[in-house]
Amino acid sequence: MKAGFLQYSPVFCDPEKNLLKLSEMLDKAPDSDLLVLPELCNSGYNFESREQAMAFSENLNDSKFIDFLQGYCQKRNTWIASGINERSGDSLFNSAILVGPAGLVGKYQKIHLFLNEKDIFSPGNAGLPVFDTPKGKIGLLVCFDWIFPEVWRILALKGADVICHCSNLVLPGFAQRSVPVHALLNHVYVITANRIGTEKDLTFTGMSTIADPSGNVICQSPPENEDIAVFDLDFALARNKQITPRNNLFVDRRPELYKDLLTL
Amino acid sequence: MKAGFLQYSPVFCDPEKNLLKLSEMLDKAPDSDLLVLPELCNSGYNFESREQAMAFSENLNDSKFIDFLQGYCQKRNTWIASGINERSGDSLFNSAILVGPAGLVGKYQKIHLFLNEKDIFSPGNAGLPVFDTPKGKIGLLVCFDWIFPEVWRILALKGADVICHCSNLVLPGFAQRSVPVHALLNHVYVITANRIGTEKDLTFTGMSTIADPSGNVICQSPPENEDIAVFDLDFALARNKQITPRNNLFVDRRPELYKDLLTL
Repeated sequence: MKAGFLQYSPVFCDPEKNLLKLSEMLDKAPDSDLLVLPELCNSGYNFESREQAMAFSENLNDSKFIDFLQGYCQKRNTWIASGINERSGDSLFNSAILVGPAGLVGKYQKIHLFLNEKDIFSPGNAGLPVFDTPKGKIGLLVCFDWIFPEVWRILALKGADVICHCSNLVLPGFAQRSVPVHALLNHVYVITANRIGTEKDLTFTGMSTIADPSGNVICQSPPENEDIAVFDLDFALARNKQITPRNNLFVDRRPELYKDLLTL
Repeated sequence: MKAGFLQYSPVFCDPEKNLLKLSEMLDKAPDSDLLVLPELCNSGYNFESREQAMAFSENLNDSKFIDFLQGYCQKRNTWIASGINERSGDSLFNSAILVGPAGLVGKYQKIHLFLNEKDIFSPGNAGLPVFDTPKGKIGLLVCFDWIFPEVWRILALKGADVICHCSNLVLPGFAQRSVPVHALLNHVYVITANRIGTEKDLTFTGMSTIADPSGNVICQSPPENEDIAVFDLDFALARNKQITPRNNLFVDRRPELYKDLLTL
């Protein structure tokens, strides 16, 4: 299983140039089974208004961005997890999609919105799905979700081998430091694809990361450069939750004592 | 607020020598408002049998160990969180207690047992209390609890300013690497007091740690030496869960989407 990420700077509010840029990056990528792209990859991030975000959103049933990704997945027999500015009726969602050779596999709508995203996007209501693909079980998160341990746990409990974390991180390194610990606590692989570059007042912090189920950092990109990383991952490691001969990470949970998580 | 830990090697199955050793350590400690001691501090850890553990357990209503801690707390006007081998009827619990100048404030019974602890101790059923003291709100965890993000979250949701993590860690550094991230994800202080030394086949890994609500490591002890650390903590930082002008760590949670945490 070869999986990794593209770290680059999507082109803001210019879909044609944006696809050209993405195409250049993908052409440079080695063969893979799964590639993770940053958050809001079809549009850029730092919108001046909801109207501007709406103008560069796409309906997932009729999306040039998804068509383009599917073309690559067909040609290279791979799967791509990517952030996307999703229009659904009158609502916008900061979503992540999984695309394979046959097209859209499924989506996740970001449930924890950051700062001014609250003026633009609706909080996701599509739950926390895990997608069973020929390459493995894949969960999706978006950026600020990183600070909520609940969502990593839920995806792992649902059987995710790898959690693809499409990001436009701006805080200095907090998420990149935490992601390997989420991997360790849930014994899963995590791939955080973060973007670089600047949009108006926001500078994105790169440092895209792959972490293994023991919390080891397999690779971490520099903060400011484009980067493409693809590494061999062994999903059998993520499926074995036996962390000592007598301790199973999930069997040892005591959910009857965790009720406060839903009520406090 | 001055808080810290003692890192040392409790004396195995010899209560008198054990109290002498602890007394030496406490006499060297600077003034504090809260001190955290390792797991099973009244007895040592690596028992040959349940009978041996029973022989060196104490009933919390009649405990020389607690009397001793209370004496120190009275003399120095401080509070101590400590691991204790607790006997309750015919059951043993791997517990943590909070002791102040007036004596026992409360207890937590370890809910996630590690390896052969399962032959000796009953899994805790006293919930996950947070104790409101004149020094601040204090939560307790014991050692292997570290790998369950649920319990850190619950104590923080209950208002803990600091989580005292009484430990006899044997795995190489996993917990010590994770504890600062638990502090960050929950915006609380964490004090992990880990022991050093060897008992039969087990070597304990030291590296006791204090982490602040931003996930910074305030201090981390060496793996093999005795150490006493007391630092100034500002609990106002832990009480402010506003992490950006528009993001509150707890208000932004979506518990209606977290139900799988209790059912999977």
